[in-house]
Amino acid sequence: MFGIWGHEKATEITYYGLHAQQHRGQEGAGIVVSNGKTLKLHKEDGLVNDVFERADFEKLAGYAAIGNIHYVTNGNRGFDNVQPHLFHTQNGSMAVTHVGNIMNSHTLRGELEDEGSLLQTTTDTELLAHLIKRNGKDINEQSIIEALQNLVGAYAFVILTEEKMYVALDPHGIRPLSIGRLHDAYVFSSETCAFDIIGAKYERDVLPGELITISKEGLESIRFAIREKRALCAMEYVYFSRPDSDLNEVNVHASRKQMGIELAKESPADADVVTGVPDSSISAAIGYAEQCGLPYEMGLIKNRYVGRTFIQPTQELREQGVKMKLSPVRGIVEGKRVVMIDDSIIRGTTSMRIVRMLKEAGAKEVHVRIASPTARHSCFYGIDMSTEEDLIAANRPVEAIRELIGADSLAFLSPEGMEKAIVKDTSINQGVCQACFTGNYPVTMKRKGILSENKSK
Amino acid sequence: MFGIWGHEKATEITYYGLHAQQHRGQEGAGIVVSNGKTLKLHKEDGLVNDVFERADFEKLAGYAAIGNIHYVTNGNRGFDNVQPHLFHTQNGSMAVTHVGNIMNSHTLRGELEDEGSLLQTTTDTELLAHLIKRNGKDINEQSIIEALQNLVGAYAFVILTEEKMYVALDPHGIRPLSIGRLHDAYVFSSETCAFDIIGAKYERDVLPGELITISKEGLESIRFAIREKRALCAMEYVYFSRPDSDLNEVNVHASRKQMGIELAKESPADADVVTGVPDSSISAAIGYAEQCGLPYEMGLIKNRYVGRTFIQPTQELREQGVKMKLSPVRGIVEGKRVVMIDDSIIRGTTSMRIVRMLKEAGAKEVHVRIASPTARHSCFYGIDMSTEEDLIAANRPVEAIRELIGADSLAFLSPEGMEKAIVKDTSINQGVCQACFTGNYPVTMKRKGILSENKSK
Amino acid sequence: MFGIWGHEKATEITYYGLHAQQHRGQEGAGIVVSNGKTLKLHKEDGLVNDVFERADFEKLAGYAAIGNIHYVTNGNRGFDNVQPHLFHTQNGSMAVTHVGNIMNSHTLRGELEDEGSLLQTTTDTELLAHLIKRNGKDINEQSIIEALQNLVGAYAFVILTEEKMYVALDPHGIRPLSIGRLHDAYVFSSETCAFDIIGAKYERDVLPGELITISKEGLESIRFAIREKRALCAMEYVYFSRPDSDLNEVNVHASRKQMGIELAKESPADADVVTGVPDSSISAAIGYAEQCGLPYEMGLIKNRYVGRTFIQPTQELREQGVKMKLSPVRGIVEGKRVVMIDDSIIRGTTSMRIVRMLKEAGAKEVHVRIASPTARHSCFYGIDMSTEEDLIAANRPVEAIRELIGADSLAFLSPEGMEKAIVKDTSINQGVCQACFTGNYPVTMKRKGILSENKSK
Amino acid sequence: MFGIWGHEKATEITYYGLHAQQHRGQEGAGIVVSNGKTLKLHKEDGLVNDVFERADFEKLAGYAAIGNIHYVTNGNRGFDNVQPHLFHTQNGSMAVTHVGNIMNSHTLRGELEDEGSLLQTTTDTELLAHLIKRNGKDINEQSIIEALQNLVGAYAFVILTEEKMYVALDPHGIRPLSIGRLHDAYVFSSETCAFDIIGAKYERDVLPGELITISKEGLESIRFAIREKRALCAMEYVYFSRPDSDLNEVNVHASRKQMGIELAKESPADADVVTGVPDSSISAAIGYAEQCGLPYEMGLIKNRYVGRTFIQPTQELREQGVKMKLSPVRGIVEGKRVVMIDDSIIRGTTSMRIVRMLKEAGAKEVHVRIASPTARHSCFYGIDMSTEEDLIAANRPVEAIRELIGADSLAFLSPEGMEKAIVKDTSINQGVCQACFTGNYPVTMKRKGILSENKSK
Repeated sequence: MFGIWGHEKATEITYYGLHAQQHRGQEGAGIVVSNGKTLKLHKEDGLVNDVFERADFEKLAGYAAIGNIHYVTNGNRGFDNVQPHLFHTQNGSMAVTHVGNIMNSHTLRGELEDEGSLLQTTTDTELLAHLIKRNGKDINEQSIIEALQNLVGAYAFVILTEEKMYVALDPHGIRPLSIGRLHDAYVFSSETCAFDIIGAKYERDVLPGELITISKEGLESIRFAIREKRALCAMEYVYFSRPDSDLNEVNVHASRKQMGIELAKESPADADVVTGVPDSSISAAIGYAEQCGLPYEMGLIKNRYVGRTFIQPTQELREQGVKMKLSPVRGIVEGKRVVMIDDSIIRGTTSMRIVRMLKEAGAKEVHVRIASPTARHSCFYGIDMSTEEDLIAANRPVEAIRELIGADSLAFLSPEGMEKAIVKDTSINQGVCQACFTGNYPVTMKRKGILSENKSK
Repeated sequence: MFGIWGHEKATEITYYGLHAQQHRGQEGAGIVVSNGKTLKLHKEDGLVNDVFERADFEKLAGYAAIGNIHYVTNGNRGFDNVQPHLFHTQNGSMAVTHVGNIMNSHTLRGELEDEGSLLQTTTDTELLAHLIKRNGKDINEQSIIEALQNLVGAYAFVILTEEKMYVALDPHGIRPLSIGRLHDAYVFSSETCAFDIIGAKYERDVLPGELITISKEGLESIRFAIREKRALCAMEYVYFSRPDSDLNEVNVHASRKQMGIELAKESPADADVVTGVPDSSISAAIGYAEQCGLPYEMGLIKNRYVGRTFIQPTQELREQGVKMKLSPVRGIVEGKRVVMIDDSIIRGTTSMRIVRMLKEAGAKEVHVRIASPTARHSCFYGIDMSTEEDLIAANRPVEAIRELIGADSLAFLSPEGMEKAIVKDTSINQGVCQACFTGNYPVTMKRKGILSENKSK
Repeated sequence: MFGIWGHEKATEITYYGLHAQQHRGQEGAGIVVSNGKTLKLHKEDGLVNDVFERADFEKLAGYAAIGNIHYVTNGNRGFDNVQPHLFHTQNGSMAVTHVGNIMNSHTLRGELEDEGSLLQTTTDTELLAHLIKRNGKDINEQSIIEALQNLVGAYAFVILTEEKMYVALDPHGIRPLSIGRLHDAYVFSSETCAFDIIGAKYERDVLPGELITISKEGLESIRFAIREKRALCAMEYVYFSRPDSDLNEVNVHASRKQMGIELAKESPADADVVTGVPDSSISAAIGYAEQCGLPYEMGLIKNRYVGRTFIQPTQELREQGVKMKLSPVRGIVEGKRVVMIDDSIIRGTTSMRIVRMLKEAGAKEVHVRIASPTARHSCFYGIDMSTEEDLIAANRPVEAIRELIGADSLAFLSPEGMEKAIVKDTSINQGVCQACFTGNYPVTMKRKGILSENKSK
Repeated sequence: MFGIWGHEKATEITYYGLHAQQHRGQEGAGIVVSNGKTLKLHKEDGLVNDVFERADFEKLAGYAAIGNIHYVTNGNRGFDNVQPHLFHTQNGSMAVTHVGNIMNSHTLRGELEDEGSLLQTTTDTELLAHLIKRNGKDINEQSIIEALQNLVGAYAFVILTEEKMYVALDPHGIRPLSIGRLHDAYVFSSETCAFDIIGAKYERDVLPGELITISKEGLESIRFAIREKRALCAMEYVYFSRPDSDLNEVNVHASRKQMGIELAKESPADADVVTGVPDSSISAAIGYAEQCGLPYEMGLIKNRYVGRTFIQPTQELREQGVKMKLSPVRGIVEGKRVVMIDDSIIRGTTSMRIVRMLKEAGAKEVHVRIASPTARHSCFYGIDMSTEEDLIAANRPVEAIRELIGADSLAFLSPEGMEKAIVKDTSINQGVCQACFTGNYPVTMKRKGILSENKSK
């Protein structure tokens, strides 16, 4: 998610801002721009590169823009869910884009429909727009606050009208959202790496429960909810964010390296080399190697050119040994006791495949070390993590997992080690959400059975 | 527009049904299908051929489908306007598609917004959907009738829910819509040519003010409005429909040939050959030639391969004589007195160009005969005809037009001749709308200034 | 095939010249341009529209260009055969393009290979290039004449070097090739319709056995072979050329209409309406109707939007009656005795299908009249006509064909009638080749078994 | 370059083999397959992924295939140069593909043309094919040896006929080429990473001056030239090959890490962190860090999604700080003394940009260490390295380069350090070519001025 206010190349900057965050979603992209009089939208399925052409920059001329890329979780596949959404009313237009997950959306949709609203999609962005306009209200700070106060869940919203931009973060700040300055312009981004790409300066993170309004009069901030202890998603550090981003002012690569160091302290291995699964586990692997005094080597290679048009090998060829995305480096692992660092284990199938691959390439022993705790619980806050029954660790002790994946030893980072690696200080704004590891959910529906009300999309 | 109920290849049949009507719009196409449980939509910009691939037929498996192609009139350009529109509510889904123009849409949208509705597009299909759901009503015959009774204008709607299909035509029956049978299935189509293509049998035309409901219980018909004398758009005969379609049970090619015959009776010409502007004027030209006893010749050729990717000649080359779509046949026209039949004159620029082209190719005289009356009034019923100020005939006598286009003589068919060519009998269901020629509008907003309330899109 | 010499927009003009001749081949297109110093080539599979973009015009800037579209006959499928071919030598470059068929290519290739030549394709254009360079000769009028004198067959060549353009036609002039002027520039085209499209003036046809050289010094013409009586391919008139082209100074549409008139004189029919198979049979149908005094009606419609991406109906749907390219117009043919005019019968399957279609649409009788003689012999001169065993008329009397296609009566135009319709005068330059109808081949290999030496591609 | 003999999925395996080597060239790809009777070719501009579709695997069914990707060096741009090249003769067909550069091609082409040959391209593959067929010779081991003996330069050839595959390496073995086994099949590849991807076992490297013939009779090897000391291109280790490949049985990643270690020994730096330019310098950076005892950090990030369709920022935005491919990680480098490891400096512009970027991101000092010697001489053996005048190191002492790129200190690895990192033993088959660093060219034209005879393309 990205927004910019007050730059004459707003669309172009937003293109680069989204491009820098392409790893956060590959299924679609869109930008809405305001020229002060009208809002214009361009969105399509596909990568940012494929969605926009230079000519679009001229068609979307304006001084304020918001954009998003499409991250598919269970239930929001399809073009209808590509954001932003643009709404025209006779009193003006409004574009909305969002990251996260509204847990009580089903209930809210029912209420709206009973009042006569007709929703076209199952997206949370459309839901928010309808809540704002509920009962024919105008689009302003007040109606947005009323709408936000209905929501239970994790969310970061950016709203654009012809004349204003609104930015809101949920009361626990579960999803990341930062503010930067590009000369006189304000920029907003899920990840700070977008600021580096466009040459902007990081200013601060949006606060939990904060609503920011930007207009010709400048930036105003109010709090629309009691601020809770921040519960920033730990998975952002583990694998979701880019290593060059800072979250809560902690650099992601550095935090990953530190996870590797903590992991080495907790669970060292008697081995010859350390290797990591590219790309997201390299930092942790280097940290682990440094801490253990073992050489870090490139024992696994990622095939960079595997894209949309890549022809997957048939089952027959796969059984004959044709690899796809990852391949082991025989010259590195043959005859060696290898520590293989991965960032997480979700379903376990990838780990199983990599262990077998390394053994087939001649590794004498494969010691798997996971730079995050066991993922045992579903996420209701917008990370696509499989349901509990699919999580290999949900109902299995570590030893059973080790056996399943065929490793010679297996260890996970502890939640405490994780916290040490991520949290810089203990202020209210610096906490993390480890719900998928620990089951301690910061936000719930506050009644029995609540967690399962999650959208039945 | 096309719909089918009760065929296991509903989507595939709809594809062919839309394809047969591709001439009615080239900007987009979409199909919604029901498998009894859910509705699925696929739509895109472009030709029917480009929008669908064979794989889509499997994805859109079902027994009932509706589809439409996108005809761009002033103000409905853009993907948002490609139909059908699909709406999901917690009590079920509804897809809507439509042909025509709702004249009081601005007023209705204002009312809806005041009640809290949020419309995403400026389309009449979304408007109808919101009217149906107004105040949280269920989607059924009753709520559809209430919605239709709000509308002023020309329209044909097809609505699909998981379990029913609804088909409605405005009280004057301005737009064409026919019912056919394909074995046990019901089919609906703007033009009957679609029935021939899919091997269906024409049954009857939908009646003005009729609402048809199809479900497992079969077809039911009720009248939702006082039935007015039919006012079927004459332009459908003149150039919009395919020559192999029947409208009001009159074949379009035959009616065009008859227009040529009537025109020859009213305004014969002293000439050597008769030629027509391909494709829509050929039938009239042949009729004119037959009636006059002059040979019909192919004096103008249409370049079939001019498509989307054709590179238009630069102004410089055009001035040097490079032609685009039409070219004259020197061997036919050189040294001849040519009667050039065209179906209509709207802005006059095409006629001017063709006359000049024929003269440059050596025609001694060019006598222009138009197989429809002078187009002097705007259309508010869904035909893209320019505003009055752009109509060359709006404020000009025929002689002034003749001079402008450079013809040696010029004549138009009279409204009476037109009526003779089209209307088979004088029953209430067989009238035509010649408002663009005569200014007699069958539907108005019933107060002063009404015609200008048309959507300010 | 198209060439232009002496125009600063040579490539762009060639684009329009090829575009006008798109009906002569849809499988590929290419242009080579000279700017006086180097030759540049762009070619691809596909339609002219798809092969070129406006940006190519700038890349291919120059004052002389040649181009061709790719007509696939048995054995020249594939990108390698898309023309022109461009050859670079240390003394300069040469581009060659060609229409027709070299009958002794197999022998000539063998000779060349024995001398050490290495040919990459099986095209006649590459063959000619190697013959020109044989034994390291320079590229000039003399080496071209020597190369041409080796050839037996039907051909029209255009050759472009940095500084000259050469144009040659075989000694019988079997394939069409005309010269025109566009201001100061010389233009060459297989069909004259290209001249009309670009605003050029037809000057004359290239003569059988003529070699034309164009350079800064202007146009020079010499005869490289004893001139034989012209034997211009009759099939060019029957269906291959565009109706607005002139061949041997006879307009194609007019010749077709005359074929219809001659056919009506020879084989009238007792019927109600005359209809033609679009597009190529319409002219003959109108002629037939005029001569018989029967009304011409549009009893068959061609679906214009059937393109590359059209999804063919499955066998199942076809059996249920789904049509593809052609559909009958029930309103016209129902209950009528129909004369159905077609330009030719090759394999007979199309005729069979159309007769059945018309009967299913209610035609009482279908009288088939073919505006050309029975096609009984293979073509060795470049028209893709099936081998003799596939020709329905090869070994069947007319009555047996009638029965096969299910017509109520059937008649073909006589070769004499055909000659009357095409040949304007009896000078040496005005003859036609009717070999596929009569078996009288103007060019043979002059020894036993010769006709079968044709490329075993 | 890749070849396989004796596998029923030859084309599919070749696809994966080329795909694994995509980094060696992105401009085109092609495969020729033999089914024992005919050779079939498919090639196009673009990435391997884009050139082939699954359907092509069926069209190209066969048991032996060769393929290549297109690496553009100065002068071989354009589709004509995409390999393999396929030649049809009346005695059979031959496909040829090649890596490297023939230095005396100009002379050889002149000789061939004087004898009547007509070459269509300026490629070395076409040249070899013509040399083989010279004077009408058959295609066999003997004619191939005679052809090879004419060549001066660096080359690896794979030739496929209907019944045999030939593989040849130049007498110095400058370019890499290895043999592997996939069950019963033989495979050949420029890089061994392709063997890992397809599950094949590395067997040995092709020897300098070796010609291998594979047929139904199995594999035969002969030597066609006096074997010189191997001079394998050092640049293959430095940046060209994939880290998981082995060259001369030395793993590339390991050799790079060793270069970093040697570099640290020769030129340590007083700094806080070590970082590398992704991707090719990461291994060396890790080695450097390990040797120095400094932490390795991810100070520079490569934007993975920059592809063909990426819209480059305008000059204006670039000046405002918008980055493209690489961005610095402020959180890592701010306030630090950074050692920046790069694999080489060619023109110096990239180094200059990166140093500036790091300083703008807050690096206190930037110490540049290059893991290869100063590149001062052109390459005549197939690596695209700029001409001497463009090499920043050609005529500049290290201090001048340091000043130009703005580094606080700068050091290069010595040629001796390089040799230590790469060469495992000192046998005749294990030498490397460091000509671009040292000017000691292993192959020359053996007369004065020779090096400049290189193709004046």
